[in-house]
Amino acid sequence: MNSWQYREPQPITPEALEQLNTWWRAANYLSVGQIYLLDNPLLREPLTRDHIKPRLLGHWGTTPGLNFIYAHLNRVIRERSLNTIYVTGPGHGGPGMVANAYLDGTYSEVYNTIEKTEDGVRKLFRQFSFPGGIPSHVAPETPGSIHEGGELGYSLSHAYGAAFDNPDLLVATVVGDGEAETGPLATSWHSNKFVDPVNDGVVLPILHLNGYKIANPSLLARIPEEELLQLMRGYGHTPYVVSGGFDGEDPLLVHARLAETLDLVLNQIAQIKADAAAGVLDERPSWPMIILRTPKGWTCPKEIDGHPAEDNWRSHQVPLANARDTEAHTRLLEEWLRSYKPEELFDEAGAPVELATALAPVGDQRMSANPVANGGLLRQALKLPDFRDYAVDVPAPGGSVSEATAVLGDWLRDVIVKNPTNFRIFGPDETASNRLQAVFEVTDKQWDAGSLPIDSDNHLARAGRVVEMLSEHQCQGWLEGYLLTGRHGVINSYEAFIHIVDSMFNQHAKWLKSSRHIPWRRPVSSLNYLLSSHVWRQDHNGSSHQDPGFIDHVVNKKADVVRVYLPFDANTLLSTYDHCLRSVDYVNVVVAGKQPAPNWLTMDEAIAHCTRGLGILDWAGTEVAGTAPDVVLAAAGDVPTLEMLAAASILREKVPTLRVRVVNVVDLMRLQSAGEHPHGLSDSEYDAVFTSGQPVIFAYHGYPWLIHRLTYRRNGHSNLHVRGFIEEGTTTTPFDMVMLNDLDRYKLVMDVLDRVPGLAEKEGALRQEMQDSRQRARSYTREHGEDIPEVTEWAWGDAGAAAAFGDSGGDNV
Amino acid sequence: MNSWQYREPQPITPEALEQLNTWWRAANYLSVGQIYLLDNPLLREPLTRDHIKPRLLGHWGTTPGLNFIYAHLNRVIRERSLNTIYVTGPGHGGPGMVANAYLDGTYSEVYNTIEKTEDGVRKLFRQFSFPGGIPSHVAPETPGSIHEGGELGYSLSHAYGAAFDNPDLLVATVVGDGEAETGPLATSWHSNKFVDPVNDGVVLPILHLNGYKIANPSLLARIPEEELLQLMRGYGHTPYVVSGGFDGEDPLLVHARLAETLDLVLNQIAQIKADAAAGVLDERPSWPMIILRTPKGWTCPKEIDGHPAEDNWRSHQVPLANARDTEAHTRLLEEWLRSYKPEELFDEAGAPVELATALAPVGDQRMSANPVANGGLLRQALKLPDFRDYAVDVPAPGGSVSEATAVLGDWLRDVIVKNPTNFRIFGPDETASNRLQAVFEVTDKQWDAGSLPIDSDNHLARAGRVVEMLSEHQCQGWLEGYLLTGRHGVINSYEAFIHIVDSMFNQHAKWLKSSRHIPWRRPVSSLNYLLSSHVWRQDHNGSSHQDPGFIDHVVNKKADVVRVYLPFDANTLLSTYDHCLRSVDYVNVVVAGKQPAPNWLTMDEAIAHCTRGLGILDWAGTEVAGTAPDVVLAAAGDVPTLEMLAAASILREKVPTLRVRVVNVVDLMRLQSAGEHPHGLSDSEYDAVFTSGQPVIFAYHGYPWLIHRLTYRRNGHSNLHVRGFIEEGTTTTPFDMVMLNDLDRYKLVMDVLDRVPGLAEKEGALRQEMQDSRQRARSYTREHGEDIPEVTEWAWGDAGAAAAFGDSGGDNV
Ligand SMILES: Cc1ncc(C[n+]2csc(CCOP(=O)(O)OP(=O)(O)O)c2C)c(N)n1
Ligand SMILES: Cc1ncc(C[n+]2csc(CCOP(=O)(O)OP(=O)(O)O)c2C)c(N)n1
Ligand SMILES: [Mg+2]
Ligand SMILES: [Mg+2]
Repeated sequence: MNSWQYREPQPITPEALEQLNTWWRAANYLSVGQIYLLDNPLLREPLTRDHIKPRLLGHWGTTPGLNFIYAHLNRVIRERSLNTIYVTGPGHGGPGMVANAYLDGTYSEVYNTIEKTEDGVRKLFRQFSFPGGIPSHVAPETPGSIHEGGELGYSLSHAYGAAFDNPDLLVATVVGDGEAETGPLATSWHSNKFVDPVNDGVVLPILHLNGYKIANPSLLARIPEEELLQLMRGYGHTPYVVSGGFDGEDPLLVHARLAETLDLVLNQIAQIKADAAAGVLDERPSWPMIILRTPKGWTCPKEIDGHPAEDNWRSHQVPLANARDTEAHTRLLEEWLRSYKPEELFDEAGAPVELATALAPVGDQRMSANPVANGGLLRQALKLPDFRDYAVDVPAPGGSVSEATAVLGDWLRDVIVKNPTNFRIFGPDETASNRLQAVFEVTDKQWDAGSLPIDSDNHLARAGRVVEMLSEHQCQGWLEGYLLTGRHGVINSYEAFIHIVDSMFNQHAKWLKSSRHIPWRRPVSSLNYLLSSHVWRQDHNGSSHQDPGFIDHVVNKKADVVRVYLPFDANTLLSTYDHCLRSVDYVNVVVAGKQPAPNWLTMDEAIAHCTRGLGILDWAGTEVAGTAPDVVLAAAGDVPTLEMLAAASILREKVPTLRVRVVNVVDLMRLQSAGEHPHGLSDSEYDAVFTSGQPVIFAYHGYPWLIHRLTYRRNGHSNLHVRGFIEEGTTTTPFDMVMLNDLDRYKLVMDVLDRVPGLAEKEGALRQEMQDSRQRARSYTREHGEDIPEVTEWAWGDAGAAAAFGDSGGDNV
Repeated sequence: MNSWQYREPQPITPEALEQLNTWWRAANYLSVGQIYLLDNPLLREPLTRDHIKPRLLGHWGTTPGLNFIYAHLNRVIRERSLNTIYVTGPGHGGPGMVANAYLDGTYSEVYNTIEKTEDGVRKLFRQFSFPGGIPSHVAPETPGSIHEGGELGYSLSHAYGAAFDNPDLLVATVVGDGEAETGPLATSWHSNKFVDPVNDGVVLPILHLNGYKIANPSLLARIPEEELLQLMRGYGHTPYVVSGGFDGEDPLLVHARLAETLDLVLNQIAQIKADAAAGVLDERPSWPMIILRTPKGWTCPKEIDGHPAEDNWRSHQVPLANARDTEAHTRLLEEWLRSYKPEELFDEAGAPVELATALAPVGDQRMSANPVANGGLLRQALKLPDFRDYAVDVPAPGGSVSEATAVLGDWLRDVIVKNPTNFRIFGPDETASNRLQAVFEVTDKQWDAGSLPIDSDNHLARAGRVVEMLSEHQCQGWLEGYLLTGRHGVINSYEAFIHIVDSMFNQHAKWLKSSRHIPWRRPVSSLNYLLSSHVWRQDHNGSSHQDPGFIDHVVNKKADVVRVYLPFDANTLLSTYDHCLRSVDYVNVVVAGKQPAPNWLTMDEAIAHCTRGLGILDWAGTEVAGTAPDVVLAAAGDVPTLEMLAAASILREKVPTLRVRVVNVVDLMRLQSAGEHPHGLSDSEYDAVFTSGQPVIFAYHGYPWLIHRLTYRRNGHSNLHVRGFIEEGTTTTPFDMVMLNDLDRYKLVMDVLDRVPGLAEKEGALRQEMQDSRQRARSYTREHGEDIPEVTEWAWGDAGAAAAFGDSGGDNV
């Protein structure tokens, strides 16, 4: 049945108002109870100190507003058979969401010890913010949630992510007026310019002006209403204001106003949807949004200890912080609880009475039971084209040249073709710059902000699989929302700027970690990063664009949710990404180059290599079978591997008796001990590759200490010498960049000479030659502005064909 | 002289237009020259391949717009004696800023080899984006800059930061239309609600609608103009639109329009300022802003290879990427360059002609020479009250209890009193929650968004030293702008959410690093973080608020700009912060608790301890003089130190013969080797504290591997066993939190037993007792909802007085 029906406006009946208000009272009662009560849950005895929790933790202020809206959404869901989920920006309203899910019935279905009895209510109350119980926020533990809301700012991005490709879905989204001050939220209003009215669902933002944050008024509640309306219109919305509940106004009047407004708004949405379906929508619709102005902490005591509580920031958390230890507060709490008339709300057994739950929709239409909010239930594996078919030809190591991400782009193009409605690519205006342009052969960039004839060759369209906005926050938030509702996707970004979403990554990783332990949550697709335009090739930009530290940030999170890959050529990238798009419940970070670079492995080799996660490149080394190597040259990342191979080729020529082993690491987590990461090599496997006592020179893509951190428990760790990015760099040539950071082939050769016992003495001349080569290479750049031909024309062995790579300038923006 | 003069509007004279246009042509020529030319800088010969750089790096698209505005600002600066700096959001317009500074004369003053001669121009061109030359962005190297603009989004925050307490300053700020899509920028418009029209300067935002980003149109350029105007009005601005230069419109007409508009706008500002000074400004003024709509890449070739270039995203970077290798492009480039008529712009010697520089203001009024943009020139050291006077009394270790940040608040209060115009505290609505409330005894929160009677006890005022908005991005950006213009400040935030500004920290640290090597840049005050509500005490919030990884992020940056402190009680916090507020050119990260906790050191001890950066707590250990300890118990951070001391007291009682050394580390960088960080201990100093061979059990505030990363080169590293945060946690009791992460006293005792050779066998019973204690403590929380009295009432030795600490609930929001 279609969600989007126009309904002739009808007056709201007194019965409907009564149902709304009773649900609200019950939800409020159950919320306050969770925050304060250990026992006596239905107040069947006078409230005493012992009934109150010793530690009062949680947030009341936001909760009555969230409960209010929940009740109203129930009404319209029932009336219109809406398919709705509820996203609450102030996730600290956790008790409210739990209360509503309990009234719905879902809570007891999911947690079967929390029955609809007095004892059930007792357990419900006790577990909240209690050791061993449930978190205070709208966490994965909360049925119906896809948004924890602890770190404020992402409600609308998550909502729009959920709405993409869910044409029947209404995502009702509460934005806190404090939350609205955050940067990510402030730009996320513009998400409405990326929605396809035909194929996507609808986000209904409800800006909750309860007036206050933790200890301050909120900006949007204090600017003149006319200014706020202009702001919302400027964001492209049609705002509807509902205000009330102040100075003791009867809530029934406010119920009536919100109910009427919701009817209006849903009709407007139905009209837009109908026009879109009929193809008569010419312009971007001005989607409705609601401004709901109600008192913070509505229905709590007006004053506590002479300070205002209701309609004040003081109600943000636990208004009666001493409810247990101050008799007057105990009384006030009892009065407050009794104001909801619990005796009318629960029957003899302690189950909510019929009137209190009359508004509950049925089955999956309950917002707390909607499978969309437990996306793994709906998730279908992607249909993946065989990545082997996209392999580049590698006649010999280094024998051909590709832009790795462009090759990936060919495959992603066909991923899109095979999965036209559940796979998207998000990016901050860099999808082409990151060389995924092949995708535009089959799809467009979704864009509803306005187009001009000149855009005709720029792949902007009402619908498309690529969504680009210059906000890493939006891209990340949209993708998270999309994944948590059961779909698949990739975010591509410059490596340096992905730090912008460090904290969002944290929150998503924490969500995944918690979800694993919740039996009814089903696995969702992994969040896949494709980081290109990386630290070593910031030719146009220099210093501000050079930062490989996202990997360091990521590996701080629980090992069972993070994976980091550094494919070093086109075929390893293909093989890696195929793996990523099949995986669930991880965050996969893939860093890959976009510049023309040599291909090292055939597809068969790449598959074997990626399956191992690392490997010895036997063609590159000079080992003698049956003998330990004199030195191990290891590398992770495309540029470091190239330099390491160049170093190996110098050693092969200049010190032919030296037994060199060359190793490449694609899956960084292989380096960690098996006990610390599921991908970790066992110690004996590690020793077999890196030896337990020989010097290891490691050229790493990022900050060198990360390799130490991953391997400090390994045998022979004190023989490990790592080169990487040491924060040196500016706008210069690629080889000058590696030299500035001591990661160049010449320096690596010197490292080998310095670390292999006795070698430096014997090879003094070579060492000096290397020093001079560095000097010569540097001077050349200063004179010619480009790298010395001996570097740019270098090729592995007889792979002369590959000599002609270099850079493709012009779009490393 | 007052910047803010009303001037009777006058028609713009043809001479003025000619000067504007000539400056613009010259600046454009010099910009294009920097991007492309290696030689033949004044085109005195026909352009050949050899005159063109082999690698063409930089960004043209944004530059003509930035140059256009620069010329116009010059005019009004001269007319009105304005004190102005110029902040350009699209910092990739670096060539433009360099060109303007060269026309100003500043460039040659600062870099004396870049003379005003043909040879000077050659050098100017050659150095740009050239190895060993200057960066492509508006970097510290660029005179007049405080904003690199590589990572987009912070122009307005920096601008407002500069304007605070600079009542005479105009901060003209270009916001890129792409930049405007970022979250931080989208909320930064609201900064106008935090400006004091009397004591602060004026930010004039100029939204530069050049229509495009890298490869897409921009949102704000494509929404209907009426919508955009509403958006700007909704943000509280009075928008003025200037549009032109399309379809070959004569630039002189556009000059006339912008000049008239600027006159109007500056008069409006003068009026606001006059009203404010006269005390007749009742309401928040609707500050003017300008929407400038001109073609991206304006004046470059209309088409290249059949694709549009001017007025298209294709002009974003280097429109003629093959200018050197394609003869047709070489010709097109020459035509383009000659279109500016260089022969009219430079005299025989190669110096710009008078007409081209006629608009240059004099001396410090030149935007590129304004000392405000080289804040170290203006910086005055803070007048600091003696922090010793704020010491808490510590009769014995643990013999008193304080909320450390509250004690700091007392001192900060008096810092404010003594420095009423150049010190500010920024925070996202948490200054009181972080317990700095004492500052409100002497100052207010600056807030111009609208006040109500109910705010009377909430310290909101037109002017105040504390600035709070629920956006970590704004707080960070404001503070950066404030510091870079020569002032002092602190940002306070919850520890977990400071990750929101990870990438901003990166950019600021990079700025500091580069600035150190620029002789004319003077040191600026350090950026001071006060991170409270830390990982171990997230009682109200749980998992989403638990993340100590900002420290890890910070230590990836160059050692000479970062400092990390973990003061473990009130006196060490005071001593630490005194040090931070005196320092320059660092980022100081200070993590401190806000909950009631025991004080350990007297002020004299604290000063000695903080000066050393770490120290042996001899009162806590059981060492025997002249003998190495059996084990070292080290800790960093308040909660870990408490647990470690509790473990030490258990060991003292249960294994009295064990020689235990207890160490606390305040200055984390002490752990690094001296060669890696200026604060690093020498190896012998390190060994003297940690021993080179005895087991060390280290209880650390954050992720344990950081300690390994800092010490992996140290002697005895393999004997180091670190406990810290391992991503376990939820809404629970404080002691349950430490138990979940194996950082509790009982576990630490077990660690000692396990690590001291032979001890586990002997002390099997104690080990079991510890296991049971953990179990008992956990069960207690599950039953009672609070921590077991044996933990909450624990006190060091005979410091029973301290037993009564605990938590102060209620505002750990
Ligand atoms: C990004 C971020 N910064 C700071 C906080 C701390 N914090 C928790 S709640 C809150 C105030 C929220 O105000 P609002 O969004 O209006 O929510 P409500 O009034 O509905 O509680 C703040 C600042 C946070 N959760 N997230
Ligand atoms: C936060 C961030 N994300 C992505 C980029 C990559 N980037 C560089 S320039 C640019 C487009 C900028 O467009 P706009 O602000 O309109 O500048 P202009 O048109 O004046 O060049 C982008 C996306 C960046 N610099 N910063
Ligand atoms: Mg609020
Ligand atoms: Mg633009």
